[in-house]
Amino acid sequence: MSETPAAETPRLVRDASESEILDRILPRYAAAATAEVGPGDDAAVMRQQGERYVVTTDMMIHGPDFRWAWHTPFELGWKAAVTNLADVYAMGARPTGLVVAIAATADLPLTALEELADGLSAACAELAPGCAVVGGDLSVSDTFTLAITAFGDLEDRAAVLRSGARPGDVIALAGDAGRAAHGLDLLFAEGVDAQGTPDAAATAALRAREPELIAAQLAPRPPLPAGIDAARAGATAMMDVSDGLALDASRIARASGVSLNLFSGAFTAEPNLERAIRGGEDHALLATFPAGAALPAPFRAIGVVGEGSGVLCDGVPLDGKLGWDPYTAWDGQRG
Amino acid sequence: MSETPAAETPRLVRDASESEILDRILPRYAAAATAEVGPGDDAAVMRQQGERYVVTTDMMIHGPDFRWAWHTPFELGWKAAVTNLADVYAMGARPTGLVVAIAATADLPLTALEELADGLSAACAELAPGCAVVGGDLSVSDTFTLAITAFGDLEDRAAVLRSGARPGDVIALAGDAGRAAHGLDLLFAEGVDAQGTPDAAATAALRAREPELIAAQLAPRPPLPAGIDAARAGATAMMDVSDGLALDASRIARASGVSLNLFSGAFTAEPNLERAIRGGEDHALLATFPAGAALPAPFRAIGVVGEGSGVLCDGVPLDGKLGWDPYTAWDGQRG
Repeated sequence: MSETPAAETPRLVRDASESEILDRILPRYAAAATAEVGPGDDAAVMRQQGERYVVTTDMMIHGPDFRWAWHTPFELGWKAAVTNLADVYAMGARPTGLVVAIAATADLPLTALEELADGLSAACAELAPGCAVVGGDLSVSDTFTLAITAFGDLEDRAAVLRSGARPGDVIALAGDAGRAAHGLDLLFAEGVDAQGTPDAAATAALRAREPELIAAQLAPRPPLPAGIDAARAGATAMMDVSDGLALDASRIARASGVSLNLFSGAFTAEPNLERAIRGGEDHALLATFPAGAALPAPFRAIGVVGEGSGVLCDGVPLDGKLGWDPYTAWDGQRG
Repeated sequence: MSETPAAETPRLVRDASESEILDRILPRYAAAATAEVGPGDDAAVMRQQGERYVVTTDMMIHGPDFRWAWHTPFELGWKAAVTNLADVYAMGARPTGLVVAIAATADLPLTALEELADGLSAACAELAPGCAVVGGDLSVSDTFTLAITAFGDLEDRAAVLRSGARPGDVIALAGDAGRAAHGLDLLFAEGVDAQGTPDAAATAALRAREPELIAAQLAPRPPLPAGIDAARAGATAMMDVSDGLALDASRIARASGVSLNLFSGAFTAEPNLERAIRGGEDHALLATFPAGAALPAPFRAIGVVGEGSGVLCDGVPLDGKLGWDPYTAWDGQRG
């Protein structure tokens, strides 16, 4: 026996066969409660309770959506699950399964794929019990890409669309407003090296100082199951806040043919009103309820629906950039 | 009026907002027969006939899976639809919808995304009537990536898994064996420039000379609806041939705990037995049926299931590389 163990070279994606990678990843996924066939066949088989299910898809791409210097693989898996589960809950449905397509770079350690799988599983366990990864695809790419599709059972509830808000409805929010954006601002300001490139060492120091705000950006924990409570309570419209509260509110306004008037007083606990209203990625649930409806916890009233169109704050139309558009807002040179 | 129209600069992904791109793409998708809510909300809402549905996901990545110098955008959309529809049919299910995540490079003309949408729609219309794109995600990436998830209704049939083949069953194939691989060999040999890089001009000449073989690779047209007929006829196992007939047969053999013995005489119409047995991407349906079962058209018998394990040809175990493993077979420098 040698006194100092030989440094083990980590196995990389390029060293492994697809079946070896699957053997390492698949045991990390729980069995989904309603999956009769999980990973390993041509497709997963899902048992359905109600007559309707919902389906949504969302990608995480290295560069515009995440950076390895910032996100741990576990956090990436967690966040990717959250963004998809949020869309299922925002319809009033109960998430039942995810399929996960991963295009990994050849130089990625296999442990990163294992930790990513752990993050997916942990988010499902905490935010959507019974839901798990039921299938996927593995490939190689020069750009790490994660594409998740989530589905869920409406359990005979009506889907809560963006188009049902009516003048007089109360606007309510379950979850944070602006904390994920605050974390992102900190990362761009301090989680970078002197050239502005995302940097793991700088990020470690920032995490130690601002763990909650950084976690709000890298691994958000919105109260998603409240989406089902909202549907049961008669929510007239709902969506999750991914691109910014004002921008997403404008989508409900347009789909419903109404205006949404936000009250600044609802955001006094936030240090920065602009960030609360225009910041994205909190994946809070934004819903409208009939006037007088009891709001299910943790929804809180943040405004009122009116006639007209667009988004207002304290009665004044919001202008300028309402939030994040991935096609025009991303600068590949930034970071 | 000028005599010569000014050359119009094509609009690129980087010039457009997400909403402009959606406005150009979404009208190109038909309405899915069982979608109550299609693109535009947080998730699509699908109405289910039987108690079970199937879900599968598959990516197309620039480099390992396709090259713009070879594939037109229409063909890329077509092929991506086919690879996913094949997995749904291979379970014995009827495809009902697709969600489509696109990560486009900033320099891509918007017309390419329109033609890609047309290819997706055309493949659904021809191979899976009633099925259409019901949702998606748009993003930007340095590597063009298309991630599709397809789902389908089992309509109260039992799913046909890989694990049900029994000794004595007949092995049958619906579709081509080796033609897609033949097309790929031609593309690597002649659809390239002097340095071996995929080249559009060389490919155009090759297409003119070998239109059918090139189409077999770039836009395969397997007889997928036969998957439902196979399920009704009592198929004991089924999958689509994506990575190679022998490699995929070995997966049925392993899952079922049997051996699969292919008959070379079944492939005399193919110019090259090796390519027929080891070539992938035809997306033909490979199924096993009880001895004596009437094979639904166009399935043809190609072998017999036996005791033991592995894949044989005329009783001799096949060795060496049975097909394509994306993690070990792809050389990023090739082409």
